[in-house]
Amino acid sequence: MYEGPVQDLIDELGRLPGVGPKSAQRIAFHLLAAEPADISRLQEVLQKVKEGVQFCEICGNVSEEATCRICKDTRRDISLVCVVEEPKDVLAVERTREFKGRYHVLGGALDPLSGIGPDQLRIRELLRRIGGDEGGVQVAEVIIATDPNTEGEATATYLVRMLRDFPGLTVTRLASGLPMGGDLEFADELTLGRALSGRRAM
Amino acid sequence: MYEGPVQDLIDELGRLPGVGPKSAQRIAFHLLAAEPADISRLQEVLQKVKEGVQFCEICGNVSEEATCRICKDTRRDISLVCVVEEPKDVLAVERTREFKGRYHVLGGALDPLSGIGPDQLRIRELLRRIGGDEGGVQVAEVIIATDPNTEGEATATYLVRMLRDFPGLTVTRLASGLPMGGDLEFADELTLGRALSGRRAM
Repeated sequence: MYEGPVQDLIDELGRLPGVGPKSAQRIAFHLLAAEPADISRLQEVLQKVKEGVQFCEICGNVSEEATCRICKDTRRDISLVCVVEEPKDVLAVERTREFKGRYHVLGGALDPLSGIGPDQLRIRELLRRIGGDEGGVQVAEVIIATDPNTEGEATATYLVRMLRDFPGLTVTRLASGLPMGGDLEFADELTLGRALSGRRAM
Repeated sequence: MYEGPVQDLIDELGRLPGVGPKSAQRIAFHLLAAEPADISRLQEVLQKVKEGVQFCEICGNVSEEATCRICKDTRRDISLVCVVEEPKDVLAVERTREFKGRYHVLGGALDPLSGIGPDQLRIRELLRRIGGDEGGVQVAEVIIATDPNTEGEATATYLVRMLRDFPGLTVTRLASGLPMGGDLEFADELTLGRALSGRRAM
């Protein structure tokens, strides 16, 4: 449609997730008018990412060094491990300021149809972590915080089966139920059913 | 929030128009998992755009060579010039397959509050085009196809004033009115007013 590098840029941008043809065009013309320094900064960070981002050797989160900030933090409770699917889930739990343990990032959820089985996730690393000791302290509780969807639930079920034979280990799952600030009449039946079966004495 | 280059990439992506923090994060993690070749292609097109995209010396549209494909096309009616704000407007008019003349890309619309006056747009080039002759043929009609918003209307009014003294030149403006497939009751009063005042005998 356009000529030369502009169309190439639009095509490349259009391959990114969530960037449709219109957005790609808009971003391309923004870059066309941008300062060369702005484009250089974008190129540099792409280069760094291409050269490889480090992942924490303990939890698997993205990290600047061999061990991430959270795993290095001595104030955190080593006996508590929260298992999440992706690095962005670590951020989500961190934002609650409620969790003081460490994380384990699986790198996804079980999804056999997409070819993602236990070997594609960091499950072996999790078992090794639980089986060994974390800096001299035995892991006491694993909180499974995978997404409350089909893949996340399947992953949680699989993990519970793998973890239940560890002596002295408690395995928990994030509560499902009504979202705070939500409205009972607008809750879908699955969520409301979970809220009902998970009701608590008060 | 994240460590190292990942956060830098999210920050840079978040500066692009229409890319919010969530999309930036999504794109960044997509690139993290992408093949190095994919990232290289993106870097290369950025490099080409940074090195400068050529603009057609006749119409000002983005172009691979000194003269763009449209201006080079000898089958197009040289006596007809359609004035648009941006290269993407050329595409929009081309998609109609109704226009067989050539274009003139202003590079924006008059917007004094943002410091865009006549000198920031390619208006002088337009006057020179109309005043001279396009490959031996006098321009007979200028169709003003700036956006039907405040800036576009102001630009159209300004252009009409600049062009009305050219002898034998017809200056026209795209019709405003109800969008096709639209619903009369949902039309805003400005559009409906325009449709009414621009009504045609049938």
